[in-house]
Amino acid sequence: MDQQAIIVKGAIQAWQTQVDRSTQFINSLSEDQLLKEIAPGKNRGVYLVGHLCAVHDALPEILGLGNKNHPDWEHIFLKSPDKSIEKIPAVTELKEAWTAIHRRLQDGFAKMTPGDWFSRHMSMSDEDFAKDPARNKFSVLLNRTSHLAYHFGQLRLLK
Amino acid sequence: MDQQAIIVKGAIQAWQTQVDRSTQFINSLSEDQLLKEIAPGKNRGVYLVGHLCAVHDALPEILGLGNKNHPDWEHIFLKSPDKSIEKIPAVTELKEAWTAIHRRLQDGFAKMTPGDWFSRHMSMSDEDFAKDPARNKFSVLLNRTSHLAYHFGQLRLLK
Repeated sequence: MDQQAIIVKGAIQAWQTQVDRSTQFINSLSEDQLLKEIAPGKNRGVYLVGHLCAVHDALPEILGLGNKNHPDWEHIFLKSPDKSIEKIPAVTELKEAWTAIHRRLQDGFAKMTPGDWFSRHMSMSDEDFAKDPARNKFSVLLNRTSHLAYHFGQLRLLK
Repeated sequence: MDQQAIIVKGAIQAWQTQVDRSTQFINSLSEDQLLKEIAPGKNRGVYLVGHLCAVHDALPEILGLGNKNHPDWEHIFLKSPDKSIEKIPAVTELKEAWTAIHRRLQDGFAKMTPGDWFSRHMSMSDEDFAKDPARNKFSVLLNRTSHLAYHFGQLRLLK
């Protein structure tokens, strides 16, 4: 395995570790637990799960792997704060989507070559990429891993 | 800049982003705020700051950059849960240590070559490293970035 392949493997492992821990934890929570706030006056578990689903559902687009499956969730879980929209997807729907979204990403990552990760991501112009080649698909993976860990740390407070 | 240097730059940027956000946030908290629990019955802010200080103070050793400055904090903030030890370092001491620890890491990272990151880390044998070369210093950086983000997400609940 060459250097680049080793690096990509390590970063995908770091991502998958966070995904696996979160999946296991979320699946261990009841609907009642997920409907609770992580701390008094803060986001509910269900909102954080939806927020992560919406962000990760957008990842295939940014990585050039296909379109979103839940484009309407951007409004509910990214542009609107928790408790501002009365009707949000049910816990069971979110749990199923969570599994599907992360399975799709795992399959998609497996098909990417190490070199693919170091190309420009899709929400960036060729010109900007030429200026800062560190802003590639690989950097998106690193940032989303931190973002997931950030909210997973909060979800953990539900137990 | 070659591929490897671009990758390392991106990963250090991802780390530093989390460090800078955490630093700014922690410095914005009063002693009273840091002495509060992040959620009822959970860790206090001061414990999480101490925990991150202890973990990051150990990083130079793992990366081959030098010894710990606070070896006694391992017992207080890693091996013991919050509120089990009566006398822990004061908030002001932890804030000062936080700054020093992260400045030291920033200086240390600046002196490492891209290639250094892909060598074995110091808590691993040559033999284990030969089996899994993805477990290098770079993977330590990625994992510590997620770990920091995880607890930063919790600290944010103090406001």
